[in-house]
Amino acid sequence: MVGVDFSDERSREEQAAPMSAPAKSNRPVCVLGLGLIGGSLMRAARAADREVFGYNRSLDGVEAARFDGFDASADLDDVLRRASDATALIVLAVPMPALPTMLDHIRVAAPNCPLTDVTSVKVAVLQAVQDHDLLARFVGGHPMTGTAHSGWTAGAANLFVGAPWVISVDDHVDAEVWADVMQLALDCGSFVVPARSDEHDAAAAAISHLPHLVAEAVAATAADVPLAFALAAGSFRDGTRVAATSPDLVRAMCEANADPLRNALSRTIDLLVHARDGLATTGSVADLVESGHAARTHYDDYTRPEIATVTIGSDDWRRELAAAGRAGGVVRSALPTLGNRG
Amino acid sequence: MVGVDFSDERSREEQAAPMSAPAKSNRPVCVLGLGLIGGSLMRAARAADREVFGYNRSLDGVEAARFDGFDASADLDDVLRRASDATALIVLAVPMPALPTMLDHIRVAAPNCPLTDVTSVKVAVLQAVQDHDLLARFVGGHPMTGTAHSGWTAGAANLFVGAPWVISVDDHVDAEVWADVMQLALDCGSFVVPARSDEHDAAAAAISHLPHLVAEAVAATAADVPLAFALAAGSFRDGTRVAATSPDLVRAMCEANADPLRNALSRTIDLLVHARDGLATTGSVADLVESGHAARTHYDDYTRPEIATVTIGSDDWRRELAAAGRAGGVVRSALPTLGNRG
Repeated sequence: MVGVDFSDERSREEQAAPMSAPAKSNRPVCVLGLGLIGGSLMRAARAADREVFGYNRSLDGVEAARFDGFDASADLDDVLRRASDATALIVLAVPMPALPTMLDHIRVAAPNCPLTDVTSVKVAVLQAVQDHDLLARFVGGHPMTGTAHSGWTAGAANLFVGAPWVISVDDHVDAEVWADVMQLALDCGSFVVPARSDEHDAAAAAISHLPHLVAEAVAATAADVPLAFALAAGSFRDGTRVAATSPDLVRAMCEANADPLRNALSRTIDLLVHARDGLATTGSVADLVESGHAARTHYDDYTRPEIATVTIGSDDWRRELAAAGRAGGVVRSALPTLGNRG
Repeated sequence: MVGVDFSDERSREEQAAPMSAPAKSNRPVCVLGLGLIGGSLMRAARAADREVFGYNRSLDGVEAARFDGFDASADLDDVLRRASDATALIVLAVPMPALPTMLDHIRVAAPNCPLTDVTSVKVAVLQAVQDHDLLARFVGGHPMTGTAHSGWTAGAANLFVGAPWVISVDDHVDAEVWADVMQLALDCGSFVVPARSDEHDAAAAAISHLPHLVAEAVAATAADVPLAFALAAGSFRDGTRVAATSPDLVRAMCEANADPLRNALSRTIDLLVHARDGLATTGSVADLVESGHAARTHYDDYTRPEIATVTIGSDDWRRELAAAGRAGGVVRSALPTLGNRG
């Protein structure tokens, strides 16, 4: 329970008050990739009075952003030179396959900028960043939001409001960069869930990638049964909703998180095999049904206590934040950093 | 495609017109069990100007129904004597475990009444009816509707409006009784899906019982992963929604349909094992994701053509209706019966 305050949320301002909050960051934000997430981030950052500029590979995206009055360019090296000159916070908002190329350019043109990302897997990104020798200034992130649409025009300044934004607290992370990424997430209206990259990926496998594959399997199973679609109602419709997601997107998510997803699949397969065997032997599915119901009830009752007592950069702050996040804690207003204490 | 009219629904009245519809049934309806489904059926039948009376085991239910102005009693044998005198259509609306007792009483007090049920499995009910030597006047049914609540007070006259109501077309079914059950379903606002009992149960396993067990397994898997509930969003929330259903209800449904459910589970397990193996070997989950997406797309595009050309009681009518139902066909206005042709 380290660092977690389980008291009522309404009192959080009062509790945060005794320690002075850091001055709001004036660091410019440089967004690489102006699709749904990057484009929304650009809008949200400007709405929070942050200086923000960005790069997009396609001219269409650049022109759409400029048409809406934003500072966008298709010249990556020029954008990175500006970022380096201003020591901007660089946000990687490109799809996984484009990541190595971006990191190649950053290593040459802007190696000293603080760096984050908004990708849905964290260990694979961390590995790529390490391979490009950019780990020192990198803190991974994952805003848990989205829509069914993509591209600049699908974005919105309020996309992040009220959504969890995971920020990595791996052993290497720098306190100053962490505070910068936290401030960006809070500026966008999110609350912050601190988590280790490996724990993030295991959790994402269980609550996102596994449900996608299971929905695909249920839909495919029903498709082979005559009359099934004729009788399909709520439990099938809801249970297979995410099978309507673009196959490319589902594959990209799942295949980039293969090891944790295999673990989650194995656990689910074991539970289903046990239920099938129970039907054949005792005629009972009690074990699965009772544990599933208890789990869902626990989820429905889940609360998010405020993390209010960790100082970024203090002794053991990474471990404290990881433990607090693991216990369900979230950051709703900027935590103090060691250098900023009043 | 036997008996299925794939033309636009808007023309169905025109197409049904040439053959005279049967006179609306004046047969009284006797409902045994006044819970959510039975109680709603009583309300819906009366709203359709049908004479309706019923039995409920608990006095609370009887009093609640009477308070609302309905003809309800806790004296089973008295209710069945009335049903026998009026040759009422008896509707079994009790839970599976209460079925044998009801059938014992019906065999003694009202063996000649047409008989149907509203239970969510069909082969097990058919077997129980056969064991009680009541098959000759029995046609099984399953209105595919419900709410999260139970008991008389949870019922509503419009519960069945727009919902599929499966009516069995097993080899033994009597044309007159089938027409009576069809008329009741239409009077309640449902459309009718004709289906063999075994095909109903296989389909129900795939689109209802399997999704329930899979939701339980996903919820139980996530519960063991730290941080999972902290990150859970739409795909988890929707994918595990039905795990919130009462465990007793889920067990009753699944355990009464064990054999078809084992088949559906085996198919789903095979698909998930294949995906897990794919992640370990080629790194790809393409097979599962593509077949699942295609299945869900097929479901989203699914239409229900009107069955308009089968005459109940004609040569081969049961096989024709089963084939039409299997092809997605539904009955939206009363089909003619052989004796009623103009």
